[in-house]
Amino acid sequence: MQDLAAFLSSNAGSMKKSVIRELLKLTNQSDIISFAGGLPAPETFPVQELREASDRVFEKYGTIALQYGTTEGDNDLKARLVEYESAQGVSLGMQNLLITSASQQALDMLPKIFLDPGDYVIAGRPTYVGAIQAIQSYQGKMLGIPFSASNDGFDMVELEKRYERAKSQRKRIKYIYLIPDFQNPSGICWSVEKRRAIIEFAYREDLFIVEDSPYREIRFIGESIPSIYQLEQGMENRGIVINLKTFSKILAPGTRIGWVIAREDIIQKMVVAKQAMDLCTSVLTQKMIAEFMATGKLRNTIERTCGIYRDKRNFMLEKLEEYMPKRFDLTWTKPEGGLFLWLSLPHYIDTEKLFYKATEKKVAYVVGSAFYFDEPEVNSMRINFSYSSFAQIDEGIHRLAEVIKDEIDSYEAGSRGQTSPEGL
Amino acid sequence: MQDLAAFLSSNAGSMKKSVIRELLKLTNQSDIISFAGGLPAPETFPVQELREASDRVFEKYGTIALQYGTTEGDNDLKARLVEYESAQGVSLGMQNLLITSASQQALDMLPKIFLDPGDYVIAGRPTYVGAIQAIQSYQGKMLGIPFSASNDGFDMVELEKRYERAKSQRKRIKYIYLIPDFQNPSGICWSVEKRRAIIEFAYREDLFIVEDSPYREIRFIGESIPSIYQLEQGMENRGIVINLKTFSKILAPGTRIGWVIAREDIIQKMVVAKQAMDLCTSVLTQKMIAEFMATGKLRNTIERTCGIYRDKRNFMLEKLEEYMPKRFDLTWTKPEGGLFLWLSLPHYIDTEKLFYKATEKKVAYVVGSAFYFDEPEVNSMRINFSYSSFAQIDEGIHRLAEVIKDEIDSYEAGSRGQTSPEGL
Repeated sequence: MQDLAAFLSSNAGSMKKSVIRELLKLTNQSDIISFAGGLPAPETFPVQELREASDRVFEKYGTIALQYGTTEGDNDLKARLVEYESAQGVSLGMQNLLITSASQQALDMLPKIFLDPGDYVIAGRPTYVGAIQAIQSYQGKMLGIPFSASNDGFDMVELEKRYERAKSQRKRIKYIYLIPDFQNPSGICWSVEKRRAIIEFAYREDLFIVEDSPYREIRFIGESIPSIYQLEQGMENRGIVINLKTFSKILAPGTRIGWVIAREDIIQKMVVAKQAMDLCTSVLTQKMIAEFMATGKLRNTIERTCGIYRDKRNFMLEKLEEYMPKRFDLTWTKPEGGLFLWLSLPHYIDTEKLFYKATEKKVAYVVGSAFYFDEPEVNSMRINFSYSSFAQIDEGIHRLAEVIKDEIDSYEAGSRGQTSPEGL
Repeated sequence: MQDLAAFLSSNAGSMKKSVIRELLKLTNQSDIISFAGGLPAPETFPVQELREASDRVFEKYGTIALQYGTTEGDNDLKARLVEYESAQGVSLGMQNLLITSASQQALDMLPKIFLDPGDYVIAGRPTYVGAIQAIQSYQGKMLGIPFSASNDGFDMVELEKRYERAKSQRKRIKYIYLIPDFQNPSGICWSVEKRRAIIEFAYREDLFIVEDSPYREIRFIGESIPSIYQLEQGMENRGIVINLKTFSKILAPGTRIGWVIAREDIIQKMVVAKQAMDLCTSVLTQKMIAEFMATGKLRNTIERTCGIYRDKRNFMLEKLEEYMPKRFDLTWTKPEGGLFLWLSLPHYIDTEKLFYKATEKKVAYVVGSAFYFDEPEVNSMRINFSYSSFAQIDEGIHRLAEVIKDEIDSYEAGSRGQTSPEGL
């Protein structure tokens, strides 16, 4: 029997399944309350409206909706997106848009067109697992930048320091990967100053910026901050930003539709890459979304979704206050948007080891280490507040607090035991 | 302004747009009769049945159809496919299936998991453009094998010779890529003997075989030949064959759904690769196809499609006989299935140059050279018979014959002029 391992590419040989997807599977199979995964709340999906839109597509387009489409994407949907983005202050034309099979495809496309094996991407640490996997699948490398203490974006001093070191080692750096709005996993939102600073940095060092914005519209507190794409248009407008968007969080992920906004020459290169990836995205689902957008109801759907997530986020924060031990070394983010909270635990807690205890108590999260491509920090976890019901949030946070309390207690008992055995 | 060219991966820098897609665009914009492209006939799409299936999906599954699904694929669809494949004599379980965003995604996945830059894939010359693009996008190389004179598969003597030479040059060869049923572009169907021979070769040389079968069910003349996947199960059953299938030609390409049949450990590696490519395929369209299959009408759809294509193919062959000059060096294949004919023209005709004359006369084809990854043969073309109407086939072949006749005449006039000027 052919030994598969001997045939795999050096990257595939070491590819591990996404921790998140594996956990999702585990936690789907049981009575576990899962804060793992990044599923939108199903109650936000406008099922009836999408059903009607789908029916209109069959009615109006018939065989056209079932035929191959262009690689660039359906013109009806692109026209709607030009309108939608313009209303948010982004200047663009049809030639600046590429429809993708959701954002993950764009994340897979960028290393394909930019990276030779060994080339580098600058990214936050932690950052989105799917971006790490995509970059590594082309044998790309990553340079990690920690976030600032004030959680408003990169630590720019560290960026300069690490970048200089990398340059002196002759590392070829191609682009900066960022999720400035409610980052996955941390929930951090970049300030407008930091957004401008990273553009200035990219101008100076001649780099592209990939701005991944799946959660941008999911802001439920405070004022929206202009996207890096928008800000760059108001600065030198060199077209160095590539903005990735998706319907997964603002409408429904089952449609698998996303879009890329970029300079025309970049879009053209992405089109060539997409031809070899899936030829084109489903015309049927593209037209369904175009029909839905034509009703003008997307804005309402997003507002309703933000309202639901605001309530769930507030409720989860309340329950964390109520159940978690009060300690300086047990903290969590309080994001103004997105789907996730990030918990930092006492340094001696390894959340990978804790995971098994948590699942015994029927509660799940994503281990923080999954989001690191370099030395992981092991005492953190990501928890999702969009998917669970209020009752599940209450019970789940209660269970999680018990697991963490037990861990702290047993460490402190052991630690007392070790440092002053005579005291027992 | 950042100079994009300086940033591109060495592969993307040289990536050319697919000739086919570019031609498709050109020929869509005018009154050209296009035999380029590989579009199925829209009259074969069961629009009403798919509309009803889609409606049942919204009714029965609601938010589930709009949520993320598993990377492996929807279990309802997979169960239907196990049934469908078993009925054709393939032994498989759910664990041997992966749902893909149509076959092109599987073609993109295989080099991702098998190839390091510089690794080789064995393939026919000519072969499918999309496979070439995908392999090259991972900086894979290709070893080309000509077909036998009897058009029943590879020239096995050439295979042995070229393979030995490659081995002696220490080239790392990972898999053999084949389209045994009505190959794109040539229409060639491998004999059962050649299928067995390639399996024996792969056993002996310890290689995997990727069997790409988009047209397998589109046989309208003669008896079906067992797939290489099936044959291998009846031989040593080592699981060395990876079979790619798609709904694009047997139902409707706009659904963007395909499936891979393979040994479980290979499927698992492909799942990991897919996680970084698009997370999962649309649950909505997967369930729509599962609902459609549940009606039992897929078999009818395929039979109807085969009937339509048989008539169109026969009509095109008639018109070729009627309009084309009768010459030993102007020939075409007479495939028993698939969507394409392959025309070989006199050696002095370069179909790339001829293309401009053809489009002036308002007829289009795909230049044969597009299907070569090594030294192209320039005197060939692929023409599609599935998409055009009978009237378009009649008029289009007439125009094409005129263009070719003119080219032959002007060469022969010039050639007479050159070789015997005194004769004028």
